[in-house]
Amino acid sequence: MSCCSRCGILEGVPTTPSVSYSITVRLDVPSGGSAVSELTTAVEKAGGVVTALDVAGAHTEQLRIDLTIATSDTDHADRIVAALAAIEDVDVSKVSDRTFLMHLGGVIETATKHPLRTRDDLSMIYTPGVARISQAIAKDREDARRLTVKRNAVAVVTDGSAVLGLGNIGPYAALPVMEGKAALFKTFADIDAWPICLDLTDVDQIVETVAAIAPGFAGINLEDIAAPKCFEVEDRLRERLDVPVFHDDQHGTAIVVLAALRNALRVVGKDLGSVRLVMSGAGAAGTAILKLLLEAGLRDVVVCDIDGVVHTGREGLGPALRWIAENTNPRGLTGGLSDVIEGADVFVGVSAPDVLTARDVERMADGSVVFALANPVPEIDPALARAHATVVATGRSDYPNQINNVLAFPGVFRGLLDAQSHGITTEVLLAASEAIAATVADDELNANYIIPSVFHPDVHDRVAEAVRDACTAARDRA
Amino acid sequence: MSCCSRCGILEGVPTTPSVSYSITVRLDVPSGGSAVSELTTAVEKAGGVVTALDVAGAHTEQLRIDLTIATSDTDHADRIVAALAAIEDVDVSKVSDRTFLMHLGGVIETATKHPLRTRDDLSMIYTPGVARISQAIAKDREDARRLTVKRNAVAVVTDGSAVLGLGNIGPYAALPVMEGKAALFKTFADIDAWPICLDLTDVDQIVETVAAIAPGFAGINLEDIAAPKCFEVEDRLRERLDVPVFHDDQHGTAIVVLAALRNALRVVGKDLGSVRLVMSGAGAAGTAILKLLLEAGLRDVVVCDIDGVVHTGREGLGPALRWIAENTNPRGLTGGLSDVIEGADVFVGVSAPDVLTARDVERMADGSVVFALANPVPEIDPALARAHATVVATGRSDYPNQINNVLAFPGVFRGLLDAQSHGITTEVLLAASEAIAATVADDELNANYIIPSVFHPDVHDRVAEAVRDACTAARDRA
Repeated sequence: MSCCSRCGILEGVPTTPSVSYSITVRLDVPSGGSAVSELTTAVEKAGGVVTALDVAGAHTEQLRIDLTIATSDTDHADRIVAALAAIEDVDVSKVSDRTFLMHLGGVIETATKHPLRTRDDLSMIYTPGVARISQAIAKDREDARRLTVKRNAVAVVTDGSAVLGLGNIGPYAALPVMEGKAALFKTFADIDAWPICLDLTDVDQIVETVAAIAPGFAGINLEDIAAPKCFEVEDRLRERLDVPVFHDDQHGTAIVVLAALRNALRVVGKDLGSVRLVMSGAGAAGTAILKLLLEAGLRDVVVCDIDGVVHTGREGLGPALRWIAENTNPRGLTGGLSDVIEGADVFVGVSAPDVLTARDVERMADGSVVFALANPVPEIDPALARAHATVVATGRSDYPNQINNVLAFPGVFRGLLDAQSHGITTEVLLAASEAIAATVADDELNANYIIPSVFHPDVHDRVAEAVRDACTAARDRA
Repeated sequence: MSCCSRCGILEGVPTTPSVSYSITVRLDVPSGGSAVSELTTAVEKAGGVVTALDVAGAHTEQLRIDLTIATSDTDHADRIVAALAAIEDVDVSKVSDRTFLMHLGGVIETATKHPLRTRDDLSMIYTPGVARISQAIAKDREDARRLTVKRNAVAVVTDGSAVLGLGNIGPYAALPVMEGKAALFKTFADIDAWPICLDLTDVDQIVETVAAIAPGFAGINLEDIAAPKCFEVEDRLRERLDVPVFHDDQHGTAIVVLAALRNALRVVGKDLGSVRLVMSGAGAAGTAILKLLLEAGLRDVVVCDIDGVVHTGREGLGPALRWIAENTNPRGLTGGLSDVIEGADVFVGVSAPDVLTARDVERMADGSVVFALANPVPEIDPALARAHATVVATGRSDYPNQINNVLAFPGVFRGLLDAQSHGITTEVLLAASEAIAATVADDELNANYIIPSVFHPDVHDRVAEAVRDACTAARDRA
């Protein structure tokens, strides 16, 4: 299953120019004549978009120009550079890929919180003073949450077995993604996250290794670990560790889908407890979404996978599908997606491109909601879906209503760390989801704005506060 | 064996007031009269040293004063506070421990190298742009050293089994030390180091775990792992990984001792190849020092441990001591330290307090050199040693010639990372040592200045350059 909640990989998919494929071309151009104006025309003719033009150097006779251009992919970039080089008197001196430039040497680093300039600084930050901090923690281990970086540290852990839509590319190739995630943790929630890429494939070894490194962290964010091993890894680590363990591909996605669904139902005036919902996809994200929706009050849900509707009479169900069969499909439906979509209020797809047809959407109930989250190609073209559905959401950034789990994980961990939580509960996930939904005020809510942007100024703080409160309430009950 | 090269733990040892035990006391004092002047007097009478007096708030009738005081230990601090509280009209409102304040929430953090403010930033640092970085690394794993934080990242790994002089205090209590070390890496060599504290005791498990997390790092700094398991852990990881593995307690110490010894011999006009050297201590640091001195050209060395001189005829030698017996003691001496010190040019102690007497030093050769590195209490009081020896060095910061391995590890790793080295060789250790020694110019060198300060403006760069050159030379030979 492709990742449902992060902008997908566009390789092989025809697409519009994107800044994530942008290049900067350094050109030497005669200062007189029409060469400069021809640059932009050449780029536009080749289908690129000029996003910046900087003069890097000027002489009487010649200009050195840095032209930044959004392109569709590597081949497209090559064609644009060739078109520029073909202009008379223009020399291309250097082509840089902005995304690669940005990742050169990595996107995160460490920093010291205090200057270390004198022997006195050294004697407090390091020896001999640090020994007193060690002695305090040796007496009471919980002091590590107060007196060390553990207080604010999250390990972003992967084995590289299911990275974005790229599949099992291993721990080295997964590193820039984990690092990017660490940058998001810092930017949106001031959390000190460090990427841990495991050169392992076996569940037992992954569990042992994460447990072994846990003392230095107050939270574990599992990331891009393939199903079904992600379930077992998470379950066993939650059982074993005294810090929260959160598989973002599952729960981050589930939190944001539930938030978006709450607001979509506000738009169409329906109630989660009484809608009919059809899901396509029963992988890691699908299962987590299903479970959270059920916890939130959903009652009538039918799940389809590649073999059709999941029901108790279907043969060859593994434990995960067996659980789904026993906890969904109250009306005992069978067949395929088209057989069960009739009259449905909501479709949630975390499966594969084009499994839902326009005709299917037409057969849904009035005021229908379609979340087509397969990435990069959704279960149905959102424009087609919008012809019949009232609210449509995708995982893509180039349509309204992007389901993006960057909305959830920074605030969720901020809240957990602030509460010094030893674990994570369903109440926390529900609270985070409600906080995201509530960020969209009644007078803002509409079919094209059911979910805030990840740059919304309040969303991460609100999620953190809701999570902190949920942890405190749980502690008070205990 | 106590740690030889870091300022030791002063608990239980009578000592002078130190900034690492300093407190800040907030006091409310009448603005008129003599109360303010009495504060300093009271502190001095109680044996403390006032290092700062700040007025935190002023009213006509009253002053709020923050008094920062260096104390000897916790009891001493309590006595000083009591003395202040006893002054008439003075109220103590708060006492803060500066070292604890500095460590609150940790001394390191992460930072992002690029602002992440817009969707464009997000699409390059994270998805979808980051997928192209992943694809590049999937094609060529070595690109991870170029395009990710791995380029500059070092794991500071411990199991907490031999932390400073505190012993086996475990991974949680070890965390502030590893974190302090990470701060030193950043400050002195701009290296992004992250503490990894392992909840493990078994050699196999430590090796497996470090190997599992290695993809994200370009170097492994092992730290505070007890002998003898530190030897096996290091050997096996060096065998297995394609990044340098460096146990600082061994090699960092050895590098600095060799550097100091080179310069001490410059002072007394002797040659490493022809001196007689007696070592006391055969633990992790001692063994590493011995091996590096032998590589540097030392020939006549006799090693003593708690059972006396190590020689081939001694019974019950384990493999490590057997190796020492077979590679040292060319004149086949037996007995104890006092039996072999006669006529020695150099004594190097990494063992226990007070094992060397003034009489022993007196019996050494003219122009003798004594390195008494046990911490916090050296093998001989340096003042006593100086009565007969020409050059004396210790591990303590309150005497001249401090042997401090902060001189070595930042530059060593900086050089290894810059050379993108896949391992570490003896040539690298020797080159680092020579670079440290050479930092002391001929016209600076004297019996009280054989080794630069860790704050010397050039020392870390020089070490890095020497290491880089040694790596390049090795690569050219290969």
